[in-house]
Amino acid sequence: MMEYTKMNEEQLKAELKKIRRQYERIKGLGLNLDMSRGKPSPQQLSLSEELLKTELTSDDYFNEQGMDCRNYGGLDGVIECKRIFSEILEVNTDNIILGGVSSLNLMYDFISQCMTHGIGDEPWMLQDDVKFICAVPGYDRHFAIAEYFGIEMINVDMTETGPDMDAVEQLVKDSSVKGMFCVPKYSNPTGVTYSDETVRRFAALKPAASDFRVIWDNAYCVHDFNDTPDKLLNIFEVAKEYGSEDLFIEFASTSKITFSGGGISCVAASDRNIKMIRYRMSRQTIGNDKLNQLRHYKFLRDKEGVMRLMKKHARLIVPKFEKVLEVLDRELGDLGVAHWTRPNGGYFISFNATSCSARRVGELCREAGVTLTNVGATFPYNKDPNDRNIRIAPTLPPVHEIEKAAEVLCLCVKMATLEHLLGK
Amino acid sequence: MMEYTKMNEEQLKAELKKIRRQYERIKGLGLNLDMSRGKPSPQQLSLSEELLKTELTSDDYFNEQGMDCRNYGGLDGVIECKRIFSEILEVNTDNIILGGVSSLNLMYDFISQCMTHGIGDEPWMLQDDVKFICAVPGYDRHFAIAEYFGIEMINVDMTETGPDMDAVEQLVKDSSVKGMFCVPKYSNPTGVTYSDETVRRFAALKPAASDFRVIWDNAYCVHDFNDTPDKLLNIFEVAKEYGSEDLFIEFASTSKITFSGGGISCVAASDRNIKMIRYRMSRQTIGNDKLNQLRHYKFLRDKEGVMRLMKKHARLIVPKFEKVLEVLDRELGDLGVAHWTRPNGGYFISFNATSCSARRVGELCREAGVTLTNVGATFPYNKDPNDRNIRIAPTLPPVHEIEKAAEVLCLCVKMATLEHLLGK
Repeated sequence: MMEYTKMNEEQLKAELKKIRRQYERIKGLGLNLDMSRGKPSPQQLSLSEELLKTELTSDDYFNEQGMDCRNYGGLDGVIECKRIFSEILEVNTDNIILGGVSSLNLMYDFISQCMTHGIGDEPWMLQDDVKFICAVPGYDRHFAIAEYFGIEMINVDMTETGPDMDAVEQLVKDSSVKGMFCVPKYSNPTGVTYSDETVRRFAALKPAASDFRVIWDNAYCVHDFNDTPDKLLNIFEVAKEYGSEDLFIEFASTSKITFSGGGISCVAASDRNIKMIRYRMSRQTIGNDKLNQLRHYKFLRDKEGVMRLMKKHARLIVPKFEKVLEVLDRELGDLGVAHWTRPNGGYFISFNATSCSARRVGELCREAGVTLTNVGATFPYNKDPNDRNIRIAPTLPPVHEIEKAAEVLCLCVKMATLEHLLGK
Repeated sequence: MMEYTKMNEEQLKAELKKIRRQYERIKGLGLNLDMSRGKPSPQQLSLSEELLKTELTSDDYFNEQGMDCRNYGGLDGVIECKRIFSEILEVNTDNIILGGVSSLNLMYDFISQCMTHGIGDEPWMLQDDVKFICAVPGYDRHFAIAEYFGIEMINVDMTETGPDMDAVEQLVKDSSVKGMFCVPKYSNPTGVTYSDETVRRFAALKPAASDFRVIWDNAYCVHDFNDTPDKLLNIFEVAKEYGSEDLFIEFASTSKITFSGGGISCVAASDRNIKMIRYRMSRQTIGNDKLNQLRHYKFLRDKEGVMRLMKKHARLIVPKFEKVLEVLDRELGDLGVAHWTRPNGGYFISFNATSCSARRVGELCREAGVTLTNVGATFPYNKDPNDRNIRIAPTLPPVHEIEKAAEVLCLCVKMATLEHLLGK
């Protein structure tokens, strides 16, 4: 097949006619396919079925420190479960606080408390300007928190090794830049894992603002696809060399390990930060669900248990990613109209149309019964400046639906590109 | 026994000598008793043991609305569990949002969001003065939230029918008064349930501030001791008559129904308020633990199930309250040195020393091995202006310990009073 951009008008018109015919046929099928959400499939959730049967006896709910976990107390979580996160994140248990179901909530709380109480300086709400750096494309829920609090977001491009660190280093010279959102491993949606150099450059940052903090959202820390996973340096270990441990607040959860609707989360931070977070938490709550923490401990036991479970997830997820990539390669590989990522883990494929509007692709897909993540959502304020990024989330539907949905996507990209090249 | 205040100096001295001897003997016993925390006892927690064995099958985790509760979604909770709170609070399920373990956290979130985003007016953080009315004695964790956010607290006395409403009506004329903390049923620590007239006067409030809100913390809504429980009017029903539904935000939880360390909570509010709370929640979190909600539904089923369980709690709690009251009556009944409440439900007895320092009583108790709630904690800023209130929390220890602890308390009250009357 010839690259579209090399076709003359006649060829383009002929191709568009053919593609339109295919598109109309597809539309007639009344499809209803969804590649929009980074949700585990029912099969993945069933991998943790045992957790729903896990009975807690008095041997369990009196934890190893003798605490009756059915009762009040233990604000920052049970040690057994802290230890699992400690092994995974390579952070001391003393530097870990367990949260509820949602690590997003922990991030929100952290930022909310920076708004009302600051982090070693004036409350952000009482400062004139508060800005955050956002690596783009990125995670819409991060952006939604910043937008909710009126924090101005500044885009920085993702590269194959992480955010454009030249730009980051430049931006942090502005003392109104207070933080940055990062998904350092299998980044949402690019799948990029920050290179060692990128992590080192983060650790070496010298922000002008003393109350600058990086939200290090390690959501996909164990979400590998194969036996040669990406390796992310431990940010706290590297930061120690630079004395910059206080700059980083790390988050993780079991949302995509056990249950998205009933997992546990954690925040990890330096001694100083964790002390502050714990104090604030002591005003905020009586604590989180210790019984669910113990159930998770009984089910997962340790990092090894987690990694065993993640292998099972990979067996269910990988065929879906492979199918999407197979379709993209087959349908668009030779056309020079798009490029896309081939992640080694995580939940997404990031797709960039190069010669058409991503919004138009989204519209066409919707009309044909395929729901994509809202085009634009991967950027702050829902504004993709180049209108080209589409986040593909292949985990939820079964493989045959994924295949169909990917085919529809390709068809829509072709059609939108041809329309664009023909100036329609 | 003669009232202390009617004794002459010689009699007082003789009595003090006797009491001191008893106190020294008690001190020698090396007691270690705790009446400080409003915690359920292990026996109470065991009433919900079944909940720890509750297995969720696919019949359960696909809830009646067909949602896979293991996965993301259902931000504001499962309908099955909303319905239980709906029956208890007599509020529509549409006006209920479920939270996590801690209703305190929901209150904190509500206030935090008023600080950063206001509630229909300027964010509280950007307003010059923000004040809250606090009925005293009251709940220390409420006061801690206000203090954390720099909200100025104004004391209003509790009476036998609820807060002094004359004072409340006066105070809300000040537009910097933005809210009030209430525990309307079996109030912490007084055990008072607001009378119908008090509730009506709340509903009829016309605060100067358009962003005034009452935190209606109905923590003890089903925590009755007997078959003639206190009755609290439904605030929303009464408010409807006055068009003041928007003034009230109600909270409840199963912390003292099932597990304090693994229960569920809820917030109930008017259409307008609940819409705002739900929107804010959608920025904050992916939701709460739906599986624990379903477990609770499977265990409790409905209000009747809850009431059955509460009867069992009462059977365990009431003997402890009776024992404390028996000791207080026997030891202090004739001395005219204190008065105390006889609650019909809830978790506390509120004790007021009339002729000595409550702090001194706390010290003496501590030295004798009996821990009371920090004296002063029942007042904002830990300042009991009259230094007389002591919160007695009899639920946690076994009856024989409660009896001993109450005896020590009485002895310490006698000693502190005698010291005081003798000017020492």
